Amino acid sequence: MADEREVAVSPTREGDEQVRASFERKHDPSRVLTLSDGVFAIIITLLVLDVHVPELTEGQSLSEALQEIRPSFTAFVISFIVAGMYWVGHRDLFEMIRRTDRGLVWLNILYLLPLCLLPFGASLLGRYDEEPVALRIYGLVLVAIAVMRVAIWLYATNRSHLLWQLLDDRQRRAGLALTVLPGLVYLLAMLIATVAPGVSLVIYGGMPVLYFLSITVLRSGRKRDQEYADFT
Amino acid sequence: MADEREVAVSPTREGDEQVRASFERKHDPSRVLTLSDGVFAIIITLLVLDVHVPELTEGQSLSEALQEIRPSFTAFVISFIVAGMYWVGHRDLFEMIRRTDRGLVWLNILYLLPLCLLPFGASLLGRYDEEPVALRIYGLVLVAIAVMRVAIWLYATNRSHLLWQLLDDRQRRAGLALTVLPGLVYLLAMLIATVAPGVSLVIYGGMPVLYFLSITVLRSGRKRDQEYADFT
Amino acid sequence: MADEREVAVSPTREGDEQVRASFERKHDPSRVLTLSDGVFAIIITLLVLDVHVPELTEGQSLSEALQEIRPSFTAFVISFIVAGMYWVGHRDLFEMIRRTDRGLVWLNILYLLPLCLLPFGASLLGRYDEEPVALRIYGLVLVAIAVMRVAIWLYATNRSHLLWQLLDDRQRRAGLALTVLPGLVYLLAMLIATVAPGVSLVIYGGMPVLYFLSITVLRSGRKRDQEYADFT
Amino acid sequence: MADEREVAVSPTREGDEQVRASFERKHDPSRVLTLSDGVFAIIITLLVLDVHVPELTEGQSLSEALQEIRPSFTAFVISFIVAGMYWVGHRDLFEMIRRTDRGLVWLNILYLLPLCLLPFGASLLGRYDEEPVALRIYGLVLVAIAVMRVAIWLYATNRSHLLWQLLDDRQRRAGLALTVLPGLVYLLAMLIATVAPGVSLVIYGGMPVLYFLSITVLRSGRKRDQEYADFT
Repeated sequence: MADEREVAVSPTREGDEQVRASFERKHDPSRVLTLSDGVFAIIITLLVLDVHVPELTEGQSLSEALQEIRPSFTAFVISFIVAGMYWVGHRDLFEMIRRTDRGLVWLNILYLLPLCLLPFGASLLGRYDEEPVALRIYGLVLVAIAVMRVAIWLYATNRSHLLWQLLDDRQRRAGLALTVLPGLVYLLAMLIATVAPGVSLVIYGGMPVLYFLSITVLRSGRKRDQEYADFT
Repeated sequence: MADEREVAVSPTREGDEQVRASFERKHDPSRVLTLSDGVFAIIITLLVLDVHVPELTEGQSLSEALQEIRPSFTAFVISFIVAGMYWVGHRDLFEMIRRTDRGLVWLNILYLLPLCLLPFGASLLGRYDEEPVALRIYGLVLVAIAVMRVAIWLYATNRSHLLWQLLDDRQRRAGLALTVLPGLVYLLAMLIATVAPGVSLVIYGGMPVLYFLSITVLRSGRKRDQEYADFT
Repeated sequence: MADEREVAVSPTREGDEQVRASFERKHDPSRVLTLSDGVFAIIITLLVLDVHVPELTEGQSLSEALQEIRPSFTAFVISFIVAGMYWVGHRDLFEMIRRTDRGLVWLNILYLLPLCLLPFGASLLGRYDEEPVALRIYGLVLVAIAVMRVAIWLYATNRSHLLWQLLDDRQRRAGLALTVLPGLVYLLAMLIATVAPGVSLVIYGGMPVLYFLSITVLRSGRKRDQEYADFT
Repeated sequence: MADEREVAVSPTREGDEQVRASFERKHDPSRVLTLSDGVFAIIITLLVLDVHVPELTEGQSLSEALQEIRPSFTAFVISFIVAGMYWVGHRDLFEMIRRTDRGLVWLNILYLLPLCLLPFGASLLGRYDEEPVALRIYGLVLVAIAVMRVAIWLYATNRSHLLWQLLDDRQRRAGLALTVLPGLVYLLAMLIATVAPGVSLVIYGGMPVLYFLSITVLRSGRKRDQEYADFT
């Protein structure tokens, strides 16, 4: 991708307005964001499709029947908040990004791939909420999203011509920590799913709360304000 | 969130163009609106998926079979108009908002959560339109959306740095009334669902009409024109 | 809506920049378009969900089984083109519109309501393509969309403050004709569905072609160029 | 479409600001992109709906049951990457396009038609992954998308008034090659589906990788840099 950087510099040298405008159009991130926001919007809306309206069996009241959809409702709420957390992270990341290039466009597509599996994972979790296999697959989906998010973070923050402004080392470390940590926690939840499925489920449900609290704490610390002020 | 306000002021003091641009990018509400509009678009379109094409039973004509989907068609129309009313309210609210912050971004996500349950509620209502439990759950979804809407309204209107211009007390009271009132009416419909399911259904169906008429009346009153002119 | 026009004039009189900016924000059509484009995108994509992958019965080859989904495939193609035609018309119309107001926002929502019923209509047509009732309901959906489109056209073109530039009488007549005509043809197809279901189906399928050809002819006529050049 | 070009020139001659603004509004591609991005977002998200959560049969473990959804999972991944490749191509193409006209708007709608059939094709492939008929239909969908893409490419690059800047012959040839080639490969995969279904499936799965690699190679060649630098 060395040639990318070269091209990024050349219009400035030539001072050619048309070349520069063409360059900016080609690297404009707007459609990447439209596609991503569309995918996020559809995913959080599709999640509810798995909360089925129950059919009553002989002598069963609707209230009783509704008890049975509790697990799928829980899976819906957990997955909704997880998707919300990832969307907030995507928004924070792309607020730093001024230009996209070929690598970033494809990395973002590969980020959307596991994200699109979230409704499947939620559906599996809602149907088999005590099965270690289901918990592991759900965790795998979340870890895959986190891995791709780290990949985008590293790719973008290492290319200054893609950013609005350079991050200093402390900001990069803070951002990396906030990106890597959820992935590691989900990996843990995935690994202990066989021995302790209940703990695994609690981690999936509690992670967004944990994330939210930890950012709040980090932001309130005066000294670290600079690094963590950028994250929602 | 006290530090938010501080940050909001500091770029002006420093007069640093780059810091200010970065600040504005970080608080730009555009992706919040893209996500929300996407969710609204999907929800009003998903509602129709519950109006099923009937399968004919022995000796039944299609016209007869179509009679049976009336309740789900009614639930579709009611929910469509309700979603339309909430979208109009969301648009009115965010027209006042110049910047988002962390709290507003998350409140908006938590607003979308009960909204995404609307297709489930509509499906439940279409299938069990005379069951008090179904009517109560439908009401609960509508009340939850209304509560989150009030939360966003209060959060935003109390933070002048998030708004394009300050609201005076009368405007704030008028906006709060229009946001709280539908919630209260839905709460009433929910509470009387057990004793009078029919009245409850009529309220769900009639509320948007009521809302539309009341705004029209309020806007036509010359003196109050200032407060209610802002609402669609 | 007399007060709307009054408000539209007042900022100019006062020359107050802030009031004017607030006024323009409130009447900005961008979110109306985002919602509408979202709904159109979802509808044309949902249409395919009704083309089901067949399950093979005893001794049946896949090729034979695929013959059975022909009607639903035909209903998909017809409905896709119809939706495309309506989207093009919506785009043409809103290219003339500079500002929305309360009436226009609600008329657009009521336009999206029958549009959202298109997948249901297509599903019904694909399942019962020789049943007059199915053909009549499909026609009813198309007529309802056309009626709402005429309503938006009349509402907007009668309010100069909502338009980028005034239309002269010939342009208004041409636009009205192109908006009303498809509705009338669909009404005809709906009415003859009982006596001649085959003709009715042909009209639904052939209308977009007819529309396309008629605009091409009208545009190629030198004299009328002015009126019809605005329509896609 | 001769009159289009004429209109494109006339505002310049008249120097009339209002006519020019109206002309630009009418040919603004933004809503075409919003619709297309919406359709792409929905399609890649719908693909997962065909990966069903399995119902366990007597004495079957969840792990065993999950083996059975492998083909549909493979069909999901292949179709996701194919859709990603087409989206990237659509973005590359429309980055060159400054204005749309009637022909381009309709060609784009006809491009979205086979694209919307991709979830059906993927579903068919996931259910009958060894049936030549299923492989042929999947190939037909991909070829149809490629054909429409070539049609848009030829239409747009032959109309200089629609482009930001003229392409030279080498750029046009390079772009055409990258647009035509995937279509030809898919055509081949479709044709050999009867004699070698396995090879056909491998081609569908490997094409995006091939495409990605070939662009990387072409871009790294110094001399050809000019032609292929424009493609993602």
